[in-house]
Amino acid sequence: MNTLSAAVRRPLPQSFAETLRARFGERFSTADAVRTHHGHDESHFPDALPDAVVWPHCTAEVVEVVKACTAHRVPIVPFGVGSSLEGHILALYGGISVDFSEMNKVLAIHGDDMDAVIQPGITRKQLNAALHGSGLFFPVDPGADASLGGMASTRASGTNAVRYGTMRDNVLAMEVVLADGRVIRTGGRARKSSAGYDLTRLMIGSEGTLGLITELTVRLHPLPEAVSAAVCAFPDVDNAVRTVIQTIQLGIPVARIELLDTLTVQAINRYSKTTLRESPMLFFEFHGSPASVAEQAQTVQEIARDNGGQDFDWATRPEDRSRLWAARHDVYFASINLRPGCRGVTTDVCVPISRLADCIAGAREDIAASGFIAPIVGHVGDGNFHTVILVDPDDPDEIERAEALNRKIVARALAMDGTCTGEHGIGFGKQDFLITEHGRDAVDAMRALKLALDPDNLMNPGKIVPAE
Amino acid sequence: MNTLSAAVRRPLPQSFAETLRARFGERFSTADAVRTHHGHDESHFPDALPDAVVWPHCTAEVVEVVKACTAHRVPIVPFGVGSSLEGHILALYGGISVDFSEMNKVLAIHGDDMDAVIQPGITRKQLNAALHGSGLFFPVDPGADASLGGMASTRASGTNAVRYGTMRDNVLAMEVVLADGRVIRTGGRARKSSAGYDLTRLMIGSEGTLGLITELTVRLHPLPEAVSAAVCAFPDVDNAVRTVIQTIQLGIPVARIELLDTLTVQAINRYSKTTLRESPMLFFEFHGSPASVAEQAQTVQEIARDNGGQDFDWATRPEDRSRLWAARHDVYFASINLRPGCRGVTTDVCVPISRLADCIAGAREDIAASGFIAPIVGHVGDGNFHTVILVDPDDPDEIERAEALNRKIVARALAMDGTCTGEHGIGFGKQDFLITEHGRDAVDAMRALKLALDPDNLMNPGKIVPAE
Repeated sequence: MNTLSAAVRRPLPQSFAETLRARFGERFSTADAVRTHHGHDESHFPDALPDAVVWPHCTAEVVEVVKACTAHRVPIVPFGVGSSLEGHILALYGGISVDFSEMNKVLAIHGDDMDAVIQPGITRKQLNAALHGSGLFFPVDPGADASLGGMASTRASGTNAVRYGTMRDNVLAMEVVLADGRVIRTGGRARKSSAGYDLTRLMIGSEGTLGLITELTVRLHPLPEAVSAAVCAFPDVDNAVRTVIQTIQLGIPVARIELLDTLTVQAINRYSKTTLRESPMLFFEFHGSPASVAEQAQTVQEIARDNGGQDFDWATRPEDRSRLWAARHDVYFASINLRPGCRGVTTDVCVPISRLADCIAGAREDIAASGFIAPIVGHVGDGNFHTVILVDPDDPDEIERAEALNRKIVARALAMDGTCTGEHGIGFGKQDFLITEHGRDAVDAMRALKLALDPDNLMNPGKIVPAE
Repeated sequence: MNTLSAAVRRPLPQSFAETLRARFGERFSTADAVRTHHGHDESHFPDALPDAVVWPHCTAEVVEVVKACTAHRVPIVPFGVGSSLEGHILALYGGISVDFSEMNKVLAIHGDDMDAVIQPGITRKQLNAALHGSGLFFPVDPGADASLGGMASTRASGTNAVRYGTMRDNVLAMEVVLADGRVIRTGGRARKSSAGYDLTRLMIGSEGTLGLITELTVRLHPLPEAVSAAVCAFPDVDNAVRTVIQTIQLGIPVARIELLDTLTVQAINRYSKTTLRESPMLFFEFHGSPASVAEQAQTVQEIARDNGGQDFDWATRPEDRSRLWAARHDVYFASINLRPGCRGVTTDVCVPISRLADCIAGAREDIAASGFIAPIVGHVGDGNFHTVILVDPDDPDEIERAEALNRKIVARALAMDGTCTGEHGIGFGKQDFLITEHGRDAVDAMRALKLALDPDNLMNPGKIVPAE
């Protein structure tokens, strides 16, 4: 197979910058503050600044930018809100950061078909606000108020993927600008299709390395008639995880089932001023008709009780549920707050559900041996959990030890038929894991696909597929 | 982008045939009867015979075959059971038919994780027989007892995709032999992953044009605690379809909801010796806990009654349900039986649910104007329906008129944001529709991907992507 040329950092050609400035005016910037804002995400990786930032308003403008970049061999890095966790938006080889925040319109809501056509810069909260009153909602919820384009690019999921699926399942169609400036439409609004290669699913999770997403058609879901949420404390993590495994194996359609270890609960109480019992906990949410929610809740309570769970503490009012999930969503920041000035090295393994208890137990032993502060939290219904390893970003030795801990946790997950990343993506940080997980031949096949669509390696170079 | 070289039919090189015969003995055949059996599927297209057929027993043997074919530029056409409907297994340029029927083992059943690792030649009935007693089942059910490899290759679905999804949703991982003989593993047993490009979804629906599937890991589902099935007659098709639309829009998790028009019911009564009321009908199935099944059934009955539906006729005993669904599965053969000696030209459009009533009404008008016998049946919960246009295979004028009717039905579906194929695939018959549906640039992108993985165009040439 042909080789993907290694990207090189070059100064931005003067004529290129002048052309884009003339064309985009204030929507093109080379200001230091702007470049810095676009040169780091929520990961612990060092900043890597783009040479310039542009804010397109429509697909035609994106095409103009891409054609100019391709003509001048300038790397192109898409930017949503910068909440990625594996260095996805770092401009490792400089180039242009294409900020989609001003392409954030809802283009159409098809209530009868339960789908919406949106621009990629819209965030999940903006989308759900736009759906207010429609009786529908968009379920994928990675915690951060990420952009939908970014969520599609990393194949994001989050707390209620166990019931509603990930971005893979909830994007029906896309418009994508390819490296040569051509605009393609993938998928369609029909609920299923066997028409050719699944370009939609190829683009989902491709982290901007195959093209720029300029439009998405997403599935919506009916707001559940009834919702109930509860927390339940357990004597130890093992018993909590066993509750999860039995719930999933019984096929109970829980909407959310989240694990928090004692340290995480302590962090939340401190950060979000909650008064949760400081022990391992599961957060639950049930969606459905009143009768089915009651039935699900009762079955899960019985399972929890068999595993030493305390009584369920119900959050019956909508505002109580909101507070509960807001606290859950702030876990990352609550964790970071446990150690002033630190950054998080976040692990993201996901394993078959039968191995989850062993995988978490092993991770806990590794953390204990490492001496790090590293709370554990997870979308355990999918077999996915995170440890947030708190590091001093200015201490290279600490970062190396944290990465060694991450490697240990990943190695164990892979040995259990798991994946190195359930929902954060490969980005810049996990390329070695990608090879370990899928093998060199599969990564070579990925590289061949990349090369077929982006022969000059200009689309977010240095992410997912190593150049070699 | 580079060009995909057009495939050419050449005689099988003598040395190649001798090598394979020496290696595979009786598992390699050039007998006429064998070649004929592998040269046609259930479509109306003329036979196109392979030059030889081979029956591998393991991945290593598939690799040997592929390497020999690549070395001698011999086309490779995978074969499951031959139940495809768009000429997928026709050896348009000769070459080797790789028959997977002797690679049909269950390699592992992971009951706790609800997945199974299987070889591609196993059929869905064989798989479900192997799962007997496990409390689990594999839901995807295209009617025919197709092989799982074939079902993955065409992104098949069928009667209960509305609840359990299509092959896209039910394959977790694959082993694939690429055109250069390399063996890659895609996906994994974790329920979700963001690790690199989604090669699994790229292979699903690729109809053997990108590689040969030698192993699949599929999702299993818990056998529902309660199942109930019913038929309901309607005064006309419109009212039946409106019942479907309202059921889906309310988010009721029906397991199956199938439409049959009057002609189809007549065909079934004649073929399967049933005594169904000869009017438009919906067949329903509900899965869940006893309480949720009762709740679903009651809600749907109310919707049906509001749309003029007669009382539900319940099939309460398992054997009654089996007879009901066996009759539904035999629709294709029952239809063919309406006109002795005919073949079926089967349409397969799928539209957003809000357009389904209009799409079917338009198709009925087209059929009436055409003078053809063409029963309508459909997986209407997904917006997918088929017309089986009965043609005399020896009358080219009739076939052309049937294809014109198909084109009309497809054009209307595309104008309604639908797809030309919900579940049968593009194969040899729908390449023009693929371009109309996705546009030339998207099909060019598909061709670039094909070329990246199969530069010599040896993997099932002439399917999905036209050569130039």
